[in-house]
Amino acid sequence: MSTDATTDGDGEAQDGATIRLARHHLEEYLNALNALVDEAVIRITDTGLETRAVDPANVGMVGVDLSNTAFTENYAGEATFGINTRKLGALVERLDTAFLDLDYDAEFRKATIGCGPYTYTHATTNPDHVRNEPDIPDMDLSFKATVNSDQLREAVEWFDEFTTHIRMGYAPDDGEFWMKADERMSGNKIGTDDGEWRLDRSELGYVDRCGRADSQFSIDFLRDMARAIPEDRPVTIRIGEEFPMKLTYEVGWEETGANEGFAHGEVTFFLAPRIQSD
Amino acid sequence: MSTDATTDGDGEAQDGATIRLARHHLEEYLNALNALVDEAVIRITDTGLETRAVDPANVGMVGVDLSNTAFTENYAGEATFGINTRKLGALVERLDTAFLDLDYDAEFRKATIGCGPYTYTHATTNPDHVRNEPDIPDMDLSFKATVNSDQLREAVEWFDEFTTHIRMGYAPDDGEFWMKADERMSGNKIGTDDGEWRLDRSELGYVDRCGRADSQFSIDFLRDMARAIPEDRPVTIRIGEEFPMKLTYEVGWEETGANEGFAHGEVTFFLAPRIQSD
Amino acid sequence: MSTDATTDGDGEAQDGATIRLARHHLEEYLNALNALVDEAVIRITDTGLETRAVDPANVGMVGVDLSNTAFTENYAGEATFGINTRKLGALVERLDTAFLDLDYDAEFRKATIGCGPYTYTHATTNPDHVRNEPDIPDMDLSFKATVNSDQLREAVEWFDEFTTHIRMGYAPDDGEFWMKADERMSGNKIGTDDGEWRLDRSELGYVDRCGRADSQFSIDFLRDMARAIPEDRPVTIRIGEEFPMKLTYEVGWEETGANEGFAHGEVTFFLAPRIQSD
Repeated sequence: MSTDATTDGDGEAQDGATIRLARHHLEEYLNALNALVDEAVIRITDTGLETRAVDPANVGMVGVDLSNTAFTENYAGEATFGINTRKLGALVERLDTAFLDLDYDAEFRKATIGCGPYTYTHATTNPDHVRNEPDIPDMDLSFKATVNSDQLREAVEWFDEFTTHIRMGYAPDDGEFWMKADERMSGNKIGTDDGEWRLDRSELGYVDRCGRADSQFSIDFLRDMARAIPEDRPVTIRIGEEFPMKLTYEVGWEETGANEGFAHGEVTFFLAPRIQSD
Repeated sequence: MSTDATTDGDGEAQDGATIRLARHHLEEYLNALNALVDEAVIRITDTGLETRAVDPANVGMVGVDLSNTAFTENYAGEATFGINTRKLGALVERLDTAFLDLDYDAEFRKATIGCGPYTYTHATTNPDHVRNEPDIPDMDLSFKATVNSDQLREAVEWFDEFTTHIRMGYAPDDGEFWMKADERMSGNKIGTDDGEWRLDRSELGYVDRCGRADSQFSIDFLRDMARAIPEDRPVTIRIGEEFPMKLTYEVGWEETGANEGFAHGEVTFFLAPRIQSD
Repeated sequence: MSTDATTDGDGEAQDGATIRLARHHLEEYLNALNALVDEAVIRITDTGLETRAVDPANVGMVGVDLSNTAFTENYAGEATFGINTRKLGALVERLDTAFLDLDYDAEFRKATIGCGPYTYTHATTNPDHVRNEPDIPDMDLSFKATVNSDQLREAVEWFDEFTTHIRMGYAPDDGEFWMKADERMSGNKIGTDDGEWRLDRSELGYVDRCGRADSQFSIDFLRDMARAIPEDRPVTIRIGEEFPMKLTYEVGWEETGANEGFAHGEVTFFLAPRIQSD
């Protein structure tokens, strides 16, 4: 690792950085990014790892934060660099070790992943040449509740069998959280080949806000997001009326005892609504 | 559900209908149809569910009957409607519940499948616009015996590795039930790359008729049929000399105790022989 | 089986032959051949089964020997014939029996594989029309050690994710056996997207020779070879400096007790180095 301070495209001085973390924590991190993008900027700061990325069509954003508490040792330095998230995701997935080292050499702009017998040296991209890191907007959304990631993924994959868009919403009067495919209704009084999925409020996890919500989303984006979420985890869904969706879930889980533990990080997906043109 | 009597294309009055049944019973029902067709007519009568369908090339027919004893409650009404069997098959397969409700709304010609949080509303087809429902002929076939569905499927998939047609038969003198690939023999005294599969009469299940049989069939049709049959079930095979084949097996199995139970329904596959042109 | 002596293309007289062996022993035999070729010559001699084959590009060779101690009964005769290794490999893999019979009929040049209800009769090729059986050269290679087949396969598949060639070697000073992808370094002082895999001498199995070694190989060939090796077996690797590689492993394993047994045969892969043109 080079510790000489160098200067990146912004004229910002930076050192190299070296961290060690659980392999599956980095895998979850990259999986979340790969739901939306092929390349992204990784920031190693004194508080941890951080990425903000937006998909090429500006429909979805993803933010991932992993606290420095997830780093087991060797923690040193700060760095900002662009990576090919697909390539690193595929290589990290194939490794079969508990931990790995991630090192950034600021002088030669190389990121190195090492674990057991394996070492991979990646020529990083200048962060200025990667799509801008977005600010994920704070929004006041009328519905917020928690569902299980498996239940969400199964429902979204079921809709993916027959539709390209769904509406998602909450009906306060009925106390129902729902998704439905209704694109085929336009210009046709009688809905045909519609699909619906409804959960009673009592079947949801923690319900924080329960105002009326009803927005349309692309099933392709939603499916890729749902598949990136680890199995059997709580996911917090926030939606509004013709507003974006926010999905948040914890990553970097550390077991501290039987059914006990805590998360070192969090993923936020942001998905723009599809505004109906009729 | 609409209970207003309406009139279908035949001028035949019909009500709507609502039934509840085990999800895997409907899955087996649709799997059998999907071995041969993409769309079919479902008849809900006072005795149960019933479908007869023929493949577009008129080579295979399938008949499925599921008794009303398979319906657990809510049973009401009669109905006849055409469905897209592939689409409903794929959606029913993804559901993860024990039971589902099938409802037909005669007024709007909609079939609705509901279970747990899921509801799917299918715009049915006018039965008059689906290929005619065939009568599966009764035939006097010289051989009739039972084999295990796994043994049949493995043998058929093995032949599918290297041939497009097989002959199937029974040799009373040798007491052997056999399949063989012999299409490559034509015009060649010495058979090359032939495959054979032989079971001694003692290795068959119940043997009801054991006259000489020898007929040629398409391996593609036979493979699709064999794959639709649930695992580890007895299948009754009936064949003759240059005659069609009949395969029958039970569906809608209900467990009533340890290794005890009974079937609510039956599938019949009918496969025309390929007549040799030499 | 014909026992009349006949004459093959070489004017060499031969009888037919009949052997019985464990199905998975023949499967391992054919898997090794299918790593490199589509067709090959099988020799049944009084010492066992034997094949030598070279791939169409003359980059890799494979030799397989299975001793007659692997034959359980019926052993009789000698024969030499060409087979389609892919076709027989696919058919033998689908069979689900412990043993099978391999019979060669010299008069009609037919090889027959039989087991349980299945019989497959293969029209063999004249051995003179199959690519010449190579002599696998004896070579004095500077490094020879044993690794686990799973460890080798996982590493080779990892490299296959991002490169087409690797260098493999041993560094006596560091006591390290290594593979690395370095094709992208040419004309570029700083290696980018390089991958390395290193095992300390202490992590290897038996180390027989530990001289300096460093040679380049095609990842495609190496991957196909590594995938043909049964799981969790020791593989002996021999390499030199810009020299071919030899991989050898045992096949035809027979269990004689808890964690005890012996091998009836051996596979040798020979892989030519890719000479760097810079």
